[in-house]
This record gives sequence, C-alpha cells and structure tokens, in this order.
Amino acid sequence: MRFFSDNAAPVAQPVLDAMIAANTLDTAYDGDRWSQSLDARFSEVFETNVRVLWVPTGTAANCLALAALCPPDGGVICHAHAHINVDEAGAPEFYTHGAKLMLADGPGAKLTPHAIETLAGAIRNDVHQVQPRAISITNATEYGLVYTPAEVTAIGDVARARGLGLHMDGARFANAVAHLGCAPADVTWRAGVDALSFGCVKNGGMNAEALVFFKTELADMALRRRKRAGLLHSKGRYLAAQLLAMLEDDLWLKNARAANAGARLLANAACARLVHPVEANEVFLKVTADEAARLRGLGFDFYDWGVGEARLVVSWDQAEADIAPLATAIAAL
Amino acid sequence: MRFFSDNAAPVAQPVLDAMIAANTLDTAYDGDRWSQSLDARFSEVFETNVRVLWVPTGTAANCLALAALCPPDGGVICHAHAHINVDEAGAPEFYTHGAKLMLADGPGAKLTPHAIETLAGAIRNDVHQVQPRAISITNATEYGLVYTPAEVTAIGDVARARGLGLHMDGARFANAVAHLGCAPADVTWRAGVDALSFGCVKNGGMNAEALVFFKTELADMALRRRKRAGLLHSKGRYLAAQLLAMLEDDLWLKNARAANAGARLLANAACARLVHPVEANEVFLKVTADEAARLRGLGFDFYDWGVGEARLVVSWDQAEADIAPLATAIAAL
Amino acid sequence: MRFFSDNAAPVAQPVLDAMIAANTLDTAYDGDRWSQSLDARFSEVFETNVRVLWVPTGTAANCLALAALCPPDGGVICHAHAHINVDEAGAPEFYTHGAKLMLADGPGAKLTPHAIETLAGAIRNDVHQVQPRAISITNATEYGLVYTPAEVTAIGDVARARGLGLHMDGARFANAVAHLGCAPADVTWRAGVDALSFGCVKNGGMNAEALVFFKTELADMALRRRKRAGLLHSKGRYLAAQLLAMLEDDLWLKNARAANAGARLLANAACARLVHPVEANEVFLKVTADEAARLRGLGFDFYDWGVGEARLVVSWDQAEADIAPLATAIAAL
Amino acid sequence: MRFFSDNAAPVAQPVLDAMIAANTLDTAYDGDRWSQSLDARFSEVFETNVRVLWVPTGTAANCLALAALCPPDGGVICHAHAHINVDEAGAPEFYTHGAKLMLADGPGAKLTPHAIETLAGAIRNDVHQVQPRAISITNATEYGLVYTPAEVTAIGDVARARGLGLHMDGARFANAVAHLGCAPADVTWRAGVDALSFGCVKNGGMNAEALVFFKTELADMALRRRKRAGLLHSKGRYLAAQLLAMLEDDLWLKNARAANAGARLLANAACARLVHPVEANEVFLKVTADEAARLRGLGFDFYDWGVGEARLVVSWDQAEADIAPLATAIAAL
Repeated sequence: MRFFSDNAAPVAQPVLDAMIAANTLDTAYDGDRWSQSLDARFSEVFETNVRVLWVPTGTAANCLALAALCPPDGGVICHAHAHINVDEAGAPEFYTHGAKLMLADGPGAKLTPHAIETLAGAIRNDVHQVQPRAISITNATEYGLVYTPAEVTAIGDVARARGLGLHMDGARFANAVAHLGCAPADVTWRAGVDALSFGCVKNGGMNAEALVFFKTELADMALRRRKRAGLLHSKGRYLAAQLLAMLEDDLWLKNARAANAGARLLANAACARLVHPVEANEVFLKVTADEAARLRGLGFDFYDWGVGEARLVVSWDQAEADIAPLATAIAAL
Repeated sequence: MRFFSDNAAPVAQPVLDAMIAANTLDTAYDGDRWSQSLDARFSEVFETNVRVLWVPTGTAANCLALAALCPPDGGVICHAHAHINVDEAGAPEFYTHGAKLMLADGPGAKLTPHAIETLAGAIRNDVHQVQPRAISITNATEYGLVYTPAEVTAIGDVARARGLGLHMDGARFANAVAHLGCAPADVTWRAGVDALSFGCVKNGGMNAEALVFFKTELADMALRRRKRAGLLHSKGRYLAAQLLAMLEDDLWLKNARAANAGARLLANAACARLVHPVEANEVFLKVTADEAARLRGLGFDFYDWGVGEARLVVSWDQAEADIAPLATAIAAL
Repeated sequence: MRFFSDNAAPVAQPVLDAMIAANTLDTAYDGDRWSQSLDARFSEVFETNVRVLWVPTGTAANCLALAALCPPDGGVICHAHAHINVDEAGAPEFYTHGAKLMLADGPGAKLTPHAIETLAGAIRNDVHQVQPRAISITNATEYGLVYTPAEVTAIGDVARARGLGLHMDGARFANAVAHLGCAPADVTWRAGVDALSFGCVKNGGMNAEALVFFKTELADMALRRRKRAGLLHSKGRYLAAQLLAMLEDDLWLKNARAANAGARLLANAACARLVHPVEANEVFLKVTADEAARLRGLGFDFYDWGVGEARLVVSWDQAEADIAPLATAIAAL
Repeated sequence: MRFFSDNAAPVAQPVLDAMIAANTLDTAYDGDRWSQSLDARFSEVFETNVRVLWVPTGTAANCLALAALCPPDGGVICHAHAHINVDEAGAPEFYTHGAKLMLADGPGAKLTPHAIETLAGAIRNDVHQVQPRAISITNATEYGLVYTPAEVTAIGDVARARGLGLHMDGARFANAVAHLGCAPADVTWRAGVDALSFGCVKNGGMNAEALVFFKTELADMALRRRKRAGLLHSKGRYLAAQLLAMLEDDLWLKNARAANAGARLLANAACARLVHPVEANEVFLKVTADEAARLRGLGFDFYDWGVGEARLVVSWDQAEADIAPLATAIAAL
C-alpha cells in the first residue's frame, strides 16, 4: 500500500471523463472553448478577475510565476526547504535567467515576516549585492503545514512594504484550503499574493496545473514565456478540461478533504511521533529504522525523511479502509 | 471542414485507450513500467540502441535536442523557414542559453549540403564569430517535402566532416517515413542523425512526443535538462502510454499514410496550382483571394500562406469522403 | 604601415596623461570624482540630461544597451552586417538572455525605415513568433557610411510608432559627427535614439567606452547588469578619466576629423575603385588579388574584404605624410 | 587615512610605466607581443604549462572560470561568505547560465573537506536535485585567512574523488603566497586547483587580472566566452603589460609582503580585539560604535563589519609610517 507520495495516484474519473469529452475537434493551442473559459471560471472561484494559464507541471507553474515576478538580476526569498530550491533541478534559475534563491529558515518550512525582514534587511542596497524582488511561499508547505490568511497577509504586507512580488506554490493548495475552510481568495490575493501555482496533479489531475495571476498584467508576458519554454501544447483543451473538471462541483476540495482526513487518521494514531502538526495530507513521523522496516514488512510503502523520520502521504483516492491498517500498525509499533 | 492544421485533430482511440489503461497506480516521473519500456521499444523500431525521453511538445523535444548538441556560444544551422526559427518563440535560444540560429535557404524549406557548406565556410574560425556546432533539419519540412535517406546522408556527411551534431525535427516524421517507405533507421541514424524529435501529437497523440537519442551519451544530460525545464511530469506514464500506443501495430504509420493519401487526393485535383510537390500531408496552393473566399464559403477552413497562397493540411482522422468535396471544389475553381 | 584597423592604434597623449593624473587615491568603483562627473559632462555635450556608464569595450556597451531595451523573449532588428550580429560572438544573445537578432539588409550596412517595416510587418503578433522590441543601428556603419539626422529620425519614427527601443552603436560615432558637422544631439536623442554606445577606443582611448542613456530611466538597471557582467572595475577612475579627456577641448572630434581626412585622401586617389562612399575613416576598394599583393609588397597592411575587395582604415594618429604614399600607390595601380 | 579597502589604491609605478611603454602600435585583441607572452611567463611562475587570459576584473575572472567548470544545470560549492556569493551581483549565475551556488559554512570563510562532504553527501543523485560540479575557494579568504598547501590539497582530494572542478579565487592570492612563503604551484595545481583567478588590481594593478588555467584544455572555451561577455579588449596589450609588470622582479610578492606587514603591525596592536587570525592584509577588530567613532575622528577610514566589528585593509602602497598612527590609536582605545 502506497504512502510515498500523492504524485503518482490515478486520475480522478471526472477528470478523465472530461478529457474524453474533449476528444473532438477544436482550435489549437489555447484557442479552444475549454481554455478560453478558464479565466472566467477561476475568477468565480477566486471572487476577482484573474488570468489563468494551464501548464503541465508544478515546476513549470512555479517558474513561470517567478520569471514574471523577478528579473534575472534579482532574488527570490524562499524557505531553504522549498520545493523550488530543493527539488526543481535549478528550474527557477533557468526560467528567471539566473535569479538567486535567497534562503530563509523557519519551522515546518514556513517563512515568517521576521525571517524575511532579517534576510532582506541584511542586504546592502548597492549594485554588488543581488536585491530581492520576490517572495515565494508554499501552501501547504513541504511539511504539510498550512499558512492561515493572517499569516499570508503578514507576509504580503512585508512584500508590499519592500516592493516585492509574492508567489504561492500551491501544489497542495487544495489541501490547504480544505484545512482552512476559508475562501480561496482569503489566503491568496486578499492576503497579497500576486501569482498562485494552483495544483491539480497531486489531487486527481493527470498533467495540468493552473498558473493563476491575480496581478493580471503579468499574464501576457507569461503567455509568451510559456510558449518559449516549450510548454504550449497544441491540444491545450485536454489540459483545460482537467482544470475545469477539478473545479466542477468542488471536486478539488472534495479530493483534498479526503486526503486530509486520511492523514488525520494516521496522525491520530501517531500523536507522540509527529514531527510536525498534521494540517494537510502529509504525516512526518519519528520512527527508528527498525520500526520503518516493520511497517514496510507489512506492505506499507513510504519514504524515509532524513535519519529517524518517515514521510507518509495520503492521496485523494485512498479510502479510510485503505488507511486504517497503517494507522493500526503505527499505533502498534 | 478543417484543413488548417493537423495539430488540433482528436486523439486516436487506441492512444486514448492506452491512457485510460494506464490510469492505475505506478511509480512517479519516469519510473513507471510504460516509461521504462520506451528505450527498448524504440530501439526495436530503429534497429539500434536508442535512449528515449517523453516530452509534452515538439518545441520541447527540438530544444532539448539542440541544447544537447550545441553549447551557449555555438550556432545551429537551419533553414530560415524552420519551425525552430519561425514558430518557437525563441525557445531554441532559451534552451541553449543563447546559441544563434544560422539561417540558410533552399527550396521547400530543405537544406542542402551546398547551402550548409556555403554558410559554414564563410565563418571565420576566431573568437569573434559564433561557430556552428549543430545542424537541424525538418523531415517532412514545413512545406511538406521529404528528405530521402540519400539527402540526409549527404547532410550527415557534412556534419561529420565539420564536427557538427545533426538534429532532425520530426514533428511529421511519420508522414516522411510513410512517404519514403524506408526503414526509420535509414533516414535517421544510418544517415548521420544524432537526435530525433519523433512527433506524435499531430499524428493522433494527445500531448506526448518522443525525443530519441541515437547518440545515446547525450541522454543523461537531457534528462537533467528536461526536469530543469519543468517538463518532467510526475505522472509520466500517461505520456509513455501514448507513445507506446502509437508504435503498437504501426499505428503511427497507418495514421500518417491516411493523412498523406488525403493530401494526395487534393494534390491530384490541384496539379497546376501546387507551390511545392506534395509528399506528406500538406498541400500548398496558388489561389487568388477570391478563390480562397469561395472555398471558405463552401465551409472549408485553411490558412492563407503569404499572398496568393493557401495551406491545406490533412489530418490522420479525415476520411476520403471528408476530403473529396474539397478536391472537387478546388478542381472546379 | 598599418591600415588594417583603427582598433589597435596607440592611446592619445591627453588620454594617457589624464589616466596618469588619476593615479592617486579615490573611492572605488564609480564613486570617484571622475566617474561622478560623467553624467554632467556628457549632458553638456548632448544638450540634455543623460546618464552615462563607462565600460571597457564596445561589445559591452552595445550589449548592456540591448539588454536594457529588449527582454529575453524579444527581438532586436539590425542589419545583417551589423557588428552585433557578425563580430560579437553571441554577446547580444548572452546579455539579453536569448533575444533574437532579426536581420535586415540595405546598402552599406544601413537600415532603412522600409526594410524595418517590411521585416516587422511580416511578424505575426502571437505567442509563437518572437516580437521585435528594439532596433539597433550603427553610425558610422560597418562600411563607413553615416546616417544623417534625417535618416535617424525616420528610423526613430518607426521605432516610436511600433513601440520599439532604438540603440545606436557608435563605435565610430565621433567619425560620424565629424562628417556631419551637426550637434551630437541632432543625430541621437533628437532623432529618437534611446541609448548610444559612444566609442572612444578606436578614436584614441585605451579601454573605456561610454554607454549613454538618453532614456535615463534605463540606467539603474544597466548599472546592476554592468556589475553582474563583471564589468564594474574597482578602479573606475581610470576609465572615467579617459572619457573626460576625450571630451576635453573636443579631442574626440579632432581625432575623428583627422582620421576622416586621411580616408578622404585615399578615397580621392581611388575614386573608380570605391565600393562605398567614403564618409568616415574607412575605405573599401575593389582590388584584384594581384593589386592587393602589390600594395602589401610596398609595406601597406590591410584586410581583404571578401573576394576582390580590401578594407583600409585610417586611425586618428596617422599623419597625412603617412597616408600619402598609400594614396599614391593606389593611384598608380 | 584610508583603510577601507585595497581596491582603490593607486597603480604601482612599474605597472604604469609598463602601460606607457606599451603605448605603441601592435596587433589588436590578444595578438600583441605582451599578450602572447603571458602563457610562457606564468608557466615559469607556476612551474607548469598554463594557459592565461587577461580580464579586467576579478568578478570576470571568477565567473569565466566557473562557467568553464560547471554546466548550467550544475552547482558550485562555496562558502556562504564567498565573494562570488555575496558581492558579485549574481555574476556567477549569469556566466554559468543559472548554476546554483551551494553554500557551506566554516570559520573565517574557509571551506573544509568535511563541510564539502556533508553538503555534497546530502544531495540525492537524481534529476530533481542540482548536482555539484565544482568547488570554489578563496585564498586569502574574505576574512584574510590563508589556506595552506595541505588544506588546499585536502579539498582537492575531495574534488577529485567526487569528480568536481576546483577553482581558486585569488583576488588576494599574492597576499596568501607572501604569507605562506611557498611556491605558487604548491597551493594551486599541485594541490588540485584547476583554475585560478590571479588578482592584480588590489595589489597595484589598474584593471587587469589573470585567469590561469592549470587544466589547460578549458582555455579555448574560456577564450570564446571572454569575447562573448564583452571582455575582449581591442587593445589588450595594456592589460597584458600590467600582468607582466607585476611578475617582473616579483613585484606582486613585494607589494603583497608590504601590505601583509602593515596588517601585522595593526594586529600586534590589537591582539585582544582580533576576530580572525591576521594572515594576509586584512584585520577584523572587535570595536564598539564609540571606539569606531573615535578612530574615525582621528582621520582613519574603514568599514564597519556587522555590529561591533570593523574591517581594516592595508594596501600595497601604505608605508609603515602611515600605519603606525592607527596601530597606536587602536592600542590606546
């Protein structure tokens, strides 16, 4: 039974059905009726006028956003454990043409206004030092923690005060919103976010993520860069259809709630072992190598996370019945 | 009735079925069994040991190939009308970090050894001038002409003699091979090609192209660059499945033959008007604005191509019955 | 006797003296009093408020200017024979992060409004094609022709109408102004030029060129990029001193007039052989290989320029007595 | 009296004299006799066959070296306080096309084999994480500490074992060698260094640094990149002459010894206040704001270095008589 990641789960049936339904003729690239309806549909969800681009991966969404917010000679403040720094193979540097990631720390991979201020405040404003131009935060974070609207707003305030753009990597944005129970707007543009990588693939999509610009004037440049990066599919309707299907009847929130609930189940069985609070669909446990081996011996599949820790991720499609045995096994360690 | 491009046609049913069949759990990225079988499957088709990467677009395939063959300070010799120069929004420059496209001419968007030699021979070998490092040709070309094995071999010989890499943009490679009736190997590695963009999307795929390295030592770097470009899907099996389905029972050749035959139908009806010989699935006609308007009035959809010309493209899924009315209409102009 | 280029001539004594005079202590980088006075001094020369950066080479000046005027996904329209295209080793692509040089033709390496309009007009305004964002012209051109104020104004009008920036490569700007006898302003900002590479090295400098921004808001970004390109000397005063010395008592114009006059001497002796009108300090002659050999046999050093042509360049320091023998020899061929 | 940096000091008279002596005609770029003799002259100094390029700044030397050692998708391990990370405005990222600086810590800005191993060992060897490809160390370091031959050799061994290139930023290489009293070879290529930025500007030069390749096969690519970066002066002889003058009669070591001795004077007066051992020409002191103000009140000019610290740098041209008053003042605090 897999708990190694949510990024390999199957595609949700409504998403697949929408793709099949799109298997007809329409205009190429993003001229089709599915792609053309994205702006309006996401504008409803976010209660403001947004511009939306489909892209095939979260890395692409993140990096197009960063390139729109940060010039080649600038810097992007992010957490040292941020996906853009650790697991994107230098894609931010590629897309931004060499901007520098400026690394801050904070528990649970969360940035704080203080950490940002400390980092930015130590940079001399001269031509010798790279100047920060943007901040990137991840919600939910790499460790499954969720920024609240108040927390994002506090960071958004720093961004505004310093003239920095604010990007949110929302590979697990649905899990964050499902946890918060707030309006998507509350934790994004109302809190100062300029661009959001709205994740779908981990949440039941196949190969479409949405890059959402709240600062809509950035979209035109991103459209050019999307093509220039080889990301403009000629049959874009199959990506747009995925995104629309995820929004239909709040499938994105339903799937995320299911995954979060599964993680909660595990967390409840493992309270004393939790490395981080469990707010989304990831559970980090303290386990010895022996304990980890025992769980694997029972057929549970997961990643070690450094020494003495394990990461368990619950996917949208895992039923309580699938998860309960692991919860039991953890409790029995 | 559409004749504007083959890039918006539906996905072939076997391809879609293969994607649906892949809708189960497997390892992420390219660790799944579909992705893992690509090298072997393509090695059979090409009768030699190849390395294969799925990518979502032809631009991505082309530009990863160019980045593998040409350093940032080098140049890529290509036809002035090549897709990489005209319609990829600077993606070659992006992926290669600023290599220069060096433009040659030739009828039907075909490069000749002579044109390459003339261009390369005029470059001083000093540090002031960009030195060519690769050649890129398109088969079938942007105007639907097909390089024969002998023609590619002649270019491959120039490439070897000058120490240049050789890339083939095969967005319509299937159409070329279907026209030639030769082994795929004959018009690629046996003729000196180092890397091939093997197109599927225009030929019944959804969003997967294959980047095939005959010079297999280039693949490792390309794997890193694929991730760095945000092209590494976490659910890569849906791309690999498309490619495998295209190869199954020679679907790729069947589809291409159908499209080529449709174009032949049109060409036969329009002999006196042909701008280029019709060898693949594209037909370029001399038509007046008035004639073009008349065809459109009858419901036929196509692009103008400069002044006094029109481009008609036949897709894999268009039956003879769909095409015959246009042939009749052209003949009746 | 050398006529191969003006780029190897000695440094003019007043320039060298100014450098020696600067050999005292001052603030590093461009904080010294020489560097700090550049804006004011050039503003006088150009009769408007300008921002000026010293850089060590003409390529650096050109490419920092292009990077300020053109984003990575844009294009720069220039003549196919422009130095930035032919002899800068891809530096424009490096500094702009991959912008595309868009090549137009025209006699004597001069761009015309018509050529620009034709080129730009053929580009579709969509995301598939690189959009022009700037124009670069060279005055005097690579073939020694000089754009008049009216000619630059006509190009400036096209630039404004199309929203393009306008850069002038003035490696031999002094020679152009000396020929025109106009105010420097007339052939630059009054004619629509946004940024000028003001050349000194070919005209008696050692290793300082001035990048002059008429569109002054571009300078701050260029200052950052200058440092980022490794061009910010820690002892910048030795570069600033060169530039100031060149402006002192119009040394730049005196030197240029001398070089132009020398070229005129040669031109008068070679009327029937001239490939281009001689307006600056370069003379292009039709000569057979045999004739070229004879001239070289007499001790004259110059470059062949294609087949059957030779290029003679007169430097600022060559006295009439040095040049007369060549004039005589040419007349005697 | 200035102690703020050695980068604004005047040019040593023999260097200036050599430049004046070069003020004659010769071939352009690096074809002149001065430039052409660099390889041989430096090969003598380093007791091995080297290739040498003049460049105008230390940043240029460092970044051309890094670009030769690290591909765009790779990483360079360096100290968090390294000049390339802190004070080069993103130039390493620019020249390498986006390689990532991987930051390690260590006292006095010195890297240790252990720190390198720890950092490199934590990187998964997959396509998701940037792989280290080079190490860069600074000798003397940003805090004036000197790596011994044994220390460099230990790092060189790690580099070899891991297949990483090794670069040494020697902006103050002369000060390091003067301190060590060893052969220049001992602390460079014999210890595993592939490329050295050999600093001159801080040590009495005007605007020439030497990029020395011990791994000589890297030089050809660097020659192309030098031109592509706008660093190829047309009158290169004035840079080569500086370098040759610095080597003549060991001027580089004499100047460095003088500066080191001056720093020693200060260190002796300030033992209890020293933040770092004083091995080269930099002295870092613990001083209160009040004490710093008092020193400045006496006419001494220097930088604060964080809170409660001051940096004093002695230049090659400062006589003992110039320095003694500061030593006295410090002792009297």
